[in-house]
This record gives sequence, C-alpha cells and structure tokens, in this order.
Amino acid sequence: MSSNNFGQIFKISTFGESHGKAIGVVIDGCPAGLSLTEDDIFLELKKRRPGFNALTSPRKEEDRPIILSGIFENKTTGAPICILIENQVKNSYEEIKDLLRPSHGNFTYLQKYGIFDYQGGGRASARETACRVAAGAVAKKILKNEKIEVLAFLKKISDVEFNLPLSKNPAFNFQDLQKKTHKSPLFCPDKNTEKKMLLKLNEIKKENDSIGGIIEVISTPLPPGLGDPIYEKLSANLAKALFSIPACMGFEIGEGFNVASLKGSEHNDLFILKKNKVVTKTNNCGGILAGISNGMPLHLKAAFKPTPSIGRLQETLNLKNEKKMLKMPSSHDLCLAIRACPVVEAMVAIVLADALLMNRCSKI
Amino acid sequence: MSSNNFGQIFKISTFGESHGKAIGVVIDGCPAGLSLTEDDIFLELKKRRPGFNALTSPRKEEDRPIILSGIFENKTTGAPICILIENQVKNSYEEIKDLLRPSHGNFTYLQKYGIFDYQGGGRASARETACRVAAGAVAKKILKNEKIEVLAFLKKISDVEFNLPLSKNPAFNFQDLQKKTHKSPLFCPDKNTEKKMLLKLNEIKKENDSIGGIIEVISTPLPPGLGDPIYEKLSANLAKALFSIPACMGFEIGEGFNVASLKGSEHNDLFILKKNKVVTKTNNCGGILAGISNGMPLHLKAAFKPTPSIGRLQETLNLKNEKKMLKMPSSHDLCLAIRACPVVEAMVAIVLADALLMNRCSKI
Amino acid sequence: MSSNNFGQIFKISTFGESHGKAIGVVIDGCPAGLSLTEDDIFLELKKRRPGFNALTSPRKEEDRPIILSGIFENKTTGAPICILIENQVKNSYEEIKDLLRPSHGNFTYLQKYGIFDYQGGGRASARETACRVAAGAVAKKILKNEKIEVLAFLKKISDVEFNLPLSKNPAFNFQDLQKKTHKSPLFCPDKNTEKKMLLKLNEIKKENDSIGGIIEVISTPLPPGLGDPIYEKLSANLAKALFSIPACMGFEIGEGFNVASLKGSEHNDLFILKKNKVVTKTNNCGGILAGISNGMPLHLKAAFKPTPSIGRLQETLNLKNEKKMLKMPSSHDLCLAIRACPVVEAMVAIVLADALLMNRCSKI
Amino acid sequence: MSSNNFGQIFKISTFGESHGKAIGVVIDGCPAGLSLTEDDIFLELKKRRPGFNALTSPRKEEDRPIILSGIFENKTTGAPICILIENQVKNSYEEIKDLLRPSHGNFTYLQKYGIFDYQGGGRASARETACRVAAGAVAKKILKNEKIEVLAFLKKISDVEFNLPLSKNPAFNFQDLQKKTHKSPLFCPDKNTEKKMLLKLNEIKKENDSIGGIIEVISTPLPPGLGDPIYEKLSANLAKALFSIPACMGFEIGEGFNVASLKGSEHNDLFILKKNKVVTKTNNCGGILAGISNGMPLHLKAAFKPTPSIGRLQETLNLKNEKKMLKMPSSHDLCLAIRACPVVEAMVAIVLADALLMNRCSKI
Repeated sequence: MSSNNFGQIFKISTFGESHGKAIGVVIDGCPAGLSLTEDDIFLELKKRRPGFNALTSPRKEEDRPIILSGIFENKTTGAPICILIENQVKNSYEEIKDLLRPSHGNFTYLQKYGIFDYQGGGRASARETACRVAAGAVAKKILKNEKIEVLAFLKKISDVEFNLPLSKNPAFNFQDLQKKTHKSPLFCPDKNTEKKMLLKLNEIKKENDSIGGIIEVISTPLPPGLGDPIYEKLSANLAKALFSIPACMGFEIGEGFNVASLKGSEHNDLFILKKNKVVTKTNNCGGILAGISNGMPLHLKAAFKPTPSIGRLQETLNLKNEKKMLKMPSSHDLCLAIRACPVVEAMVAIVLADALLMNRCSKI
Repeated sequence: MSSNNFGQIFKISTFGESHGKAIGVVIDGCPAGLSLTEDDIFLELKKRRPGFNALTSPRKEEDRPIILSGIFENKTTGAPICILIENQVKNSYEEIKDLLRPSHGNFTYLQKYGIFDYQGGGRASARETACRVAAGAVAKKILKNEKIEVLAFLKKISDVEFNLPLSKNPAFNFQDLQKKTHKSPLFCPDKNTEKKMLLKLNEIKKENDSIGGIIEVISTPLPPGLGDPIYEKLSANLAKALFSIPACMGFEIGEGFNVASLKGSEHNDLFILKKNKVVTKTNNCGGILAGISNGMPLHLKAAFKPTPSIGRLQETLNLKNEKKMLKMPSSHDLCLAIRACPVVEAMVAIVLADALLMNRCSKI
Repeated sequence: MSSNNFGQIFKISTFGESHGKAIGVVIDGCPAGLSLTEDDIFLELKKRRPGFNALTSPRKEEDRPIILSGIFENKTTGAPICILIENQVKNSYEEIKDLLRPSHGNFTYLQKYGIFDYQGGGRASARETACRVAAGAVAKKILKNEKIEVLAFLKKISDVEFNLPLSKNPAFNFQDLQKKTHKSPLFCPDKNTEKKMLLKLNEIKKENDSIGGIIEVISTPLPPGLGDPIYEKLSANLAKALFSIPACMGFEIGEGFNVASLKGSEHNDLFILKKNKVVTKTNNCGGILAGISNGMPLHLKAAFKPTPSIGRLQETLNLKNEKKMLKMPSSHDLCLAIRACPVVEAMVAIVLADALLMNRCSKI
Repeated sequence: MSSNNFGQIFKISTFGESHGKAIGVVIDGCPAGLSLTEDDIFLELKKRRPGFNALTSPRKEEDRPIILSGIFENKTTGAPICILIENQVKNSYEEIKDLLRPSHGNFTYLQKYGIFDYQGGGRASARETACRVAAGAVAKKILKNEKIEVLAFLKKISDVEFNLPLSKNPAFNFQDLQKKTHKSPLFCPDKNTEKKMLLKLNEIKKENDSIGGIIEVISTPLPPGLGDPIYEKLSANLAKALFSIPACMGFEIGEGFNVASLKGSEHNDLFILKKNKVVTKTNNCGGILAGISNGMPLHLKAAFKPTPSIGRLQETLNLKNEKKMLKMPSSHDLCLAIRACPVVEAMVAIVLADALLMNRCSKI
C-alpha cells in the first residue's frame, strides 16, 4: 500500500528529501550469504553522480554510501540492509516557493497533500534515484550469481540516434557494448553518435533549454521462466519500474510501437535449435512471452522527457493564481536521459532479482 | 505476491481457464453502498465479446455474468464480489499440444511450471480478460460517482491511423468521441479511418495473417491528487495495468516517445487560469505530473502485437526438439487491438478507482 | 490491503455469504505439480460439516467441492485454484433483522458499512470457514510432501479438560493421537474426557444455552527455519490466522500464559543431542524460537467463546434503539470449539505451507 | 512479503542491529499535515529506555531520535518518515559465539540463514523494539486526533497480580489509571501490587534468575467500525502485532481463555442505551465483535516469557554439537514484561492508526 517501496521478495524502500541530512534505502528480503561491501555500492553510485560531466547537473556530491545494517563479516545476513547517502549540496528554492513550476511536481504534491517541501524539490527530487542505484548494486550481485548482466545505454537525444538491429539479430556482443558504454560520459556505446550528441547538447545549452532522450536496455540471455502470469508479468513489472523513474513518458518491449504495422507472419519469433538449445530466430518479443522470460536476452526502451527546469523565463501562476514569470535559480541537467541510464539499469536489475527469487516457488 | 491479482484497495483477483466450467473474478475492497446489478456488468462484457463482428474471433459466447456474492438488495455490502462467467465454447488444441507455438506462452509456461494446460491456451488465454472487463464495470461505477469517465479507442492498425491533437488541444469533446466509438465495430471514432481499417483487415484476412494496432485512451478531467509518489505513481500503475494485458508491447503517456525530440521549452505545459480554475495550456504530460494527476484529462496510448496464432503454416519445434510445421486448428482474431479496447478501458478504470480510494488517506 | 485473503506466497481468498448460491475460495501461489482431486478436499470438508453429530448445528449440507480452475490432469498447474461449495440450506433471519444480536457481528457490520446482509449472518457467518478447510486440504498436501502433519483436538469445554504434558514430554505419539481424534465426534482423543464432555453438552442443551472451549494443536517435528524474523514470525502469523477464525478469544504458544509464573531457569528449553540431532529437552516454547521453528513439534492452544446465538430469550435493542426481546429462530452449535477443530487445523496448515515456500528464498 | 514491516496503510519498516551504528524505522503512509517533532518521539522512547530502573537491563543509552525525512516545518508531508536511533552500548558476545543459547534465537537464525550476527543478539535483539516505540509515538498522534488513547500496564509477575474487573465494569477511569501507570517504574498502576512485585523481583535477582509476566491493555472507547472482516480483523491484527514482540507467548481479548468455562448466557454482552448511545452492559468481548470495534474500550492481555539470558550456568551444546556450560557475559532484564509495556502500547497504537485509515475506504 505504501508508495515508497518496490518489489515483492527483494523489496526496496526509499526515504529522504534532497534537503535533509541524508537519503536512504532499506532492502528487505535479500537472501543471506551474498558478499557485499560499501565499495560494491559506491562503484554503481559513481555512475549516476551529478557533476560526472559538464552536461549533467553541476550539483557535486560524493555520494559515498554507508551501510547501516544487514551485513556481517561482509556478507548479507538476511536482515534488512539500510544504506544511507548523505546530502552535501542544498539548492535553495526559497525565492520561487510560491510559483507553480511547469511540468514539475510541486503543483500536484500541493493538491494531494496540502503541503509541499519546496526545498530542493522535496521528495519529488531526482536525488531519490541515487537510492535505487544503491539497491540496484545489490540486485546486480544476485544476478551475477546466475550469470545475468544488464546494460542501459543512451539511444537517442533530439534527432541523433544510435540504431542497433537487436530484434533481427539477437546475437550481439554484450561485453563489448558494455565496455564501450561505460567509457562514454553519455552512456552511448557508439563513438560517432556520441560526438553528434555532444554537439547537440552544446547547442541546447546555449539556448538555455533542455532536451528529451531514449534509453535502450539489453541483457545477457535470461534463464527461461522469470516473471509470473497475468498481473505480475515480467514485462508489466518492468513497465512499472521504469515508469516509476521521474520523467519517464514511454516504455517498449522488443519491437514496441512498431508492432502496429507488423503482420503476425513478420512479428512471430520462430523457435529453432542452436547448439542443442531452443532459441528464437528473431527477438521481436524482447525476450518475454506471455509475461515470462523465454531464454533470450531482454530488450526494451524507455523515453524520458526534457528536464522541466530550464534557464529560460517561463510564464506561470503563483499560489494566489496570479500570473508570474519563473526563472529557475540554479542550473539543471540538460538531458535527464543521460543520468537516467544507471537508474534504468538499476531498476531492471531489481525487477530481475525479484523475479529470480519468486521463481523459486513455482514448482513443488 | 500472488500473480493473479491487481490493485491495492480496490483489488481484483481472476481465476479460470478457457476450457474449464467457468472463469471468474473476485473484487475485494469495493466500498459498501454502491448500486450494482448483473446488467451493469453484462453491458460492459458485451463490448469485448468474441463474435461481435466478423473480424474478431468467431468464438461465440454469451458471457452473461453471475454475481455470486457481495451484493445485497442491489447494493455492494463491502464483502468480496465474485463474478462468474461460464465457458460455452471449447477449442481443442489436442492435435498441436506437442508443438511450440511461436510468440505464444506455451513454451514459457512449460519452462516455468513443467506443466502446460494446453486446452484453449489454458491460463494464458485472452479469455481471462473478460474478467477484467467485468471488474472494470464495477470500477466505472465508482468513477461515475466522481463524474469521471474513460474511453479507449482504436487509433491505428498497420499504416491506417486516426490522429487527434490531444496534447496541443486538451479541450476535445469527450461525449462525442465516446458516442462515435461505441457505434463502431472497430472502436474507431472516425468513420473515414474505420473504412480504411476495414479494407486493411480484409486484406490481412485473405493473407491468412494478422496485424498489430495502437489503442488511445482519454478521460474527462481527473480530480488532481490521484496517484502516489515514487513507486505507486498513477503513470507507473497504468503502465503495469496495460502491460498486464496479453500482447501489449508499448505504452506511452502524453507525448510518449516523441519527447526524445522535444526541448523543455516546447514540452513544458504552462499553468494558466481558465474559468477560475488552474489548468495547463497544453497537455503534453497526459494529465500526470510527478506521478500524480494534475486536473487535466488522462491521455495515453498502448501498442498491441499481431495475434501470434495465424492461419499460415509456420516452422517450429516440438517438445522433443524436432522440426515440425504448425497449422493452427481454429481461426483467431485478425487484430487483437480491436477487442483489447474494452479491456484497456477496464484496466484504466480499475487503476483510477484504486487511486481514488487510496487518496482518501493522503491527509490527516 | 483487502480483508478477504491470507498468506504471502500460498495465498487464499474467500468469498460468498451463507445465503448466496455458493461460497468459494481462490488459492493463488500453489506450486505446480502437486497432485490434487476434488476428493482430497471433500475428505477434509466432511470433518467440519454441520450436522456431523447432534451437538453441532443441525444445518445439513453435503459440501461437495467443485474445483473450477488450476488443475490439469489431476495436477496443480501454478494457476489459481478456485473451489466452489454450493449453499443448500438457507436460514431466514427476516424476523429478527432489525434487532441487534448480542455478541454477534450485525451491529458492527452496520456501523462499518451502513448495510448488513442479515440473511444467514451474511459474510460474518461461520460458513465462510468451510472455504478455509478446503484451502487447508491443499496446504496439507504441500506439508505432506515435506512429511509434516498437524492435528487440532478439543482440549476443554466448561470444566472438563484433557491434559497432555506436551511441554515436558515432547516425544508423544502423534499418529496415535491423530487416529483417536479422527474417531471422535468431538475431536477429543481421550475416550474418558469425551464421555464427560458429552454429558456436559447435554446439560447445556437442556438449558438452551451454549458453551466455550479450548482447542490444542500439535504437529510432527517441523523442519527448523520456518517463519521470518520480526513481523512475519511463525508465531505471529499463527496468532493472526487463529484470531481470524470467528469466536477466537485467546491464543497461546507452548506454555502460553503459564510463563508469567515461570523463572528463566524453569522455562528455558536446554539443547541436547538425541540420535545425532540437536533437540530440546523440553518444549516450553512450543517449537518456535525468536519466531522461527526450531525443529521440535509445534504446540499451541486457542480459546473459542460460546456461540452467541442461544435459544434463550435475550434483552436487546432494535435499530431504532428501542428495547426488545430476542429469540433466535433456529438452533445453533452448542459449542463452536468442536466444529472449529478442523478449521484451526486448516489455518495452521496454511500458515506452515506459506512459511515453507517463503523459506525457499532465505539463502542465496 | 518482506518480514521487517508491519501495517497496510500506516506502514512501519524497521532495520538495524544492536551492534551497528544505528537502528531505525521508516514510517510510510502517514497522512500529511500531522504536527510532529523529535521531542514527541523522545518522550515515548524514554519510557522503554534500558536503565530506567535497577531492574531492567543496565544498558544505558540515551535513545534520542533523529528524524531524517518526511517532516517540513514540523508537519508530516506524506513522505516516508525515517527515524534513526544511534547505538551507544555494544555488548560483546564474542566469547559465547559458538554456543547455542537456550530459548534464544541464535540456533534458529543459524538454521534459517546459515549465518548469525552474534554481536549483541544481532537482529533478534530486543533493541529493535525501540523503533516500534518511535513509530508508536507517531501513531499515537493520529489516534489523539480522534480522541483515542491506549494504555499498557503490568498486570502480573510470578504470583503477584493486579486484578481489575474490566469485563464486568467497562466504565473505569482511564485517565487515573494512565497517570498512576506512568508514575510507576514497573508500569503497575496499583501501589500495593507494585510493592509486592518489587519484593519478588529482588528475590529473583538474588537467584540470578528471571521471571515472566502479563501485560494488560485498555483504551478509551474506540469509534465503532475499526477492523476489517475475515482476515484483517482488528483482533487478528492485534494478535499478530503483539506476537511479533520478542518473548510474547500468549494473547487474549476480553475474557480470553476464561471463555472456555462460560455459557453463552453468561458471556454475551447485552446492548443497552446509555446517554443516548448504544453500549454494552458488560465488555466480555474486549471491545471487538466479529473483528470490528463495537464502540467500547479495547481490552486485551499478553504474556511474556522470562528473559532466556540468565546469570546462572546452563548446560548447552556448541556448534560442533559438544556439551558445554553457558555463562552469560552481561546481565539482562529480570523481567521482560516490564520494558515490554511501552512496546505493547506502541504496537496497539500502530494497529489502531492503521485501522482508522483503512476505515476511510469502507463506504462509497
């Protein structure tokens, strides 16, 4: 019922606002016996850290995690794992606290709760996503135990797009793509596309504007059987997970919206035998059939809107319904989709870790 | 944890296979005092009924619902409402029970459970969605109490598309669109588009093939405050709800994947005063900000893949990993997106009814 | 959130009123591959059937279960199992529908919902417990797979009590106790006590009154590790399960309320080695330490109040707050604790089956 | 599914071990607009603080709470409230880490997780209950808004008992009882009984032993309608809440186990009119009918076992199954039931706050 947690067995709960002493996450349901250190988590947190490059938010925080509980001699004990991340930077929004911010949550929070903690965006701040990345680091360790890896990379911003024919050719080189992505400050595995994206971003910056983007996710082949039928489909939980990330506006699995123009004979993935294993010739379904993983790599995409907080003057209303002009007091990410890459990767890992554990109860 | 229910306060649980005596749904958490009859539910069930026209599945069942519990003197009592729908038609899949069906769930169910009830597709059959429509009829009564209505219509099949500029012009005529949609056997509110769609469908039929499609959903303006932050965002629950429907491959809110090419200054919906009410000039966000409804109409889209069961011969494997040719023994829907319209509408209504109830606890 | 289900992985949801066409239960989360027939369930239902003897309610219903879903070729498929039980007898409470029934739920249901389905007690009727027994039959099959058996027997009514020193001597003969209990119409394994109980019950009957009772539960040794720490302790879930049964007023594990007078040195169960297995010398803790099973037999007790519906005239109020005399139109169980035995057994089995499944996720 | 949280709408999650930097609780689902300060919480925490008197554990910690999130200008915002309590004392159990501790959780944790964080009892330490008291302080503020107060007092230790005829005479003076209880270091409202209890405790102390006890709980009259039928009965949730507290072995509502000897005519609480309000003449049911509050005061009892960690030498086994003698390295509470009083009070408050919020959704 509560709105701050996610997952059924591997369950995360986040808390904290960007202006408080710290934000944090409690992971409940992590199996005992998994090796885990603060460095494992720090490694992941570094990826989404603001200030990683000139194009994301200049907010500079080290984001070194503190594990408060659930670990004994560097192993999980089965007890809840609380991870704290201290807040070091505090943006003041005092001067604009009475203004409705276009396409931002302060209006809806006020409507819902009658109160809005305006400092640094309160609970609606994207800073909450650091907690997801921390939890994702733990989920990834569970996946690694089963030899599963996931990767989220930047596919598109504005009209610059990197196209990989993942549906038609499911046998891509995961390790290579991962290595290239991790080297890129934009999480874009293609050097040429990255260059064009940087040019576009500089253009946007000069305009005091922001831009949207699309993230693509692939994985190594999943074990078949993950996900539960009907309402806990792997696809449904992934959709919810990604739409829970601030600014997500679209989600596709496999061929996604393209399916509208496809015929069954074009879209159906035929079963074939490859090295004595049942696989499909194509992967139009993105690795999920009837909500359950079919043994192929997971493949999905998500769209993120442009940062609503822009440098330009915007017309708006204040709390007394008077017309006002809004000028954001501090600068923000040019393109949320860049920094969302590690968050998307974390959420996918969390959904898969949960599905792996749930699947232990499917047969007698 | 269980995978056959959906919702937090207004909670539905479905059961049954297409080959058993009946399928059914239990609605728990429906407030007491709501007037409800079997006819209210039958009215909705008629919409998705197979055999409604020549282009959907020829399976002919009356689908008259039986309310088993939870009603006293035509009012809900607060007790769980069980609605049964008897199965009258039983397709036999005996002859293909050993074949993996391309892009269908029989392979993944087998992998997960070690068992597959092959009759009529077992639990994976789209017949389960009749239960959602029945539950949606109850949810719609809760919405009606708050003057909320939702509508799902067919936007696109193949290259035939009906375009409504709902983001740019949020003040469309809901009632008119609803009336036109309900008159159309394809749930397409535009006569001209419907005609082209029918031509396309006949073409597909001749080819013994099937085709995908896109459904669009709009609502009357929602009260602001629906949806809970972070992991129970209205958008996240809608994404999960729609991706829980068989064959859903994509989901968008507001401008969806278009946002990748939009700048913040183009995408931001500015707050203005209209008839003394705070509204937004545009509705690019689809009526949801930071996961919470902002008082504008809900606007979303979902893509459905072509029916995997087609008349054409398909190469596949059997359970012994031998190559075989598959020929489906009975005919199926040409375009799942048509019959999915009332199901999408029902799921959206269920999410909104749940959010309305949850919102009762947001303030002291 | 919904109030009509129980369990986390092995999850039951019940529906139906005693006056409707049928009552039923949906079991979600039962692993695939378990053999199950309607006869397995009927066998258990026969135990709690009203009219089993002259001393329980004379309501005569065959209670033959119908499995609507979730079974294929006599095996569970992982899909939800819906079991229906038709209602054959309909007691009319028309004549007393405006009277508050002392120690009965009609007053509180009215306060909560503003509506009360007075026919046969509506949802508050003990008939709902038949659904629990049906679900318990399935749970017992899961337990049997792990060689676990549970037994509930009648320990006490009025001043007649059967005392077994189960704390001091944990090595009792389970099979013998079970056989004797199943032969007794009162579920009392001791012939001598049973005789005295029958005399007492006849006395109560003549007085047009009813009487309370205590049920005791034991099991074969549980595998250690069942139950989860803090809020999902095995003991806490058993307490909730038994207190969810109508008329339950007390619950004890092991020495229960006696512990108030015991010293630590008297109460502590010392670990010893027996046939190379770690066991405890005594079983004062009832088989549970810190909420987790310790490998010893489960041992608990529950108290059930006398049937509130008695033949005697009772002073009460009507819905207009006027003083009235209440005379129940039909006869009821003399002692609810008798017929509650199979219900208690079922609920304990359900909690244990759920704990067994949950325990699959405790280690990496 | 996770085992470290409790509640449905007002939901608490605790984390932390007694040997880590801090323990804490996250409260999710607290309505916005409730005034709340660290002092509100500190006031409650002081009650259960170890070292409050010579008879409880000499562990001395200030337990000053830190609110990390969820509060803005001293009001709850609807966001999760994280409260941290730092650990200052660290008992070392290094020397006995290989010994099975009789009637303690180290054996069962090891069996379940394969790991036991032996420092200070790890997660099984009663220190976790401080988090419940902190959360209870918030729940009490919700109750106060509805003019509800609860009180837990020490009823019995060993053979010393304080008897209040609460069933027969429901119109006791709550405020007076509360004042007297809060003045007593044993939470016993009766001076004379308290004196005898102190004598008994000194006796036990000299014997290097410990003793069990019984706690009684009463409230001001509850609004009718709290609690949900069938599996979320108010009584069932209270039973679970109290059995989730370490060392709880028995739970009774109203007349509890006494009901076994009572006839219906003796036990039934007759409805009467008092000052134009429907009340019951007696309160044998403890304020709950069919799982729903009936407008009378809540009345229940819970039994707590003697502290298993005693000063005396005890025979046990080590992890290699060798016989060993155990001598606890530090002293512990003589009687857990004393310090459990504020914890019981907190858990009852949490259950009631949750039921109050859930009840907002019972009618249309």
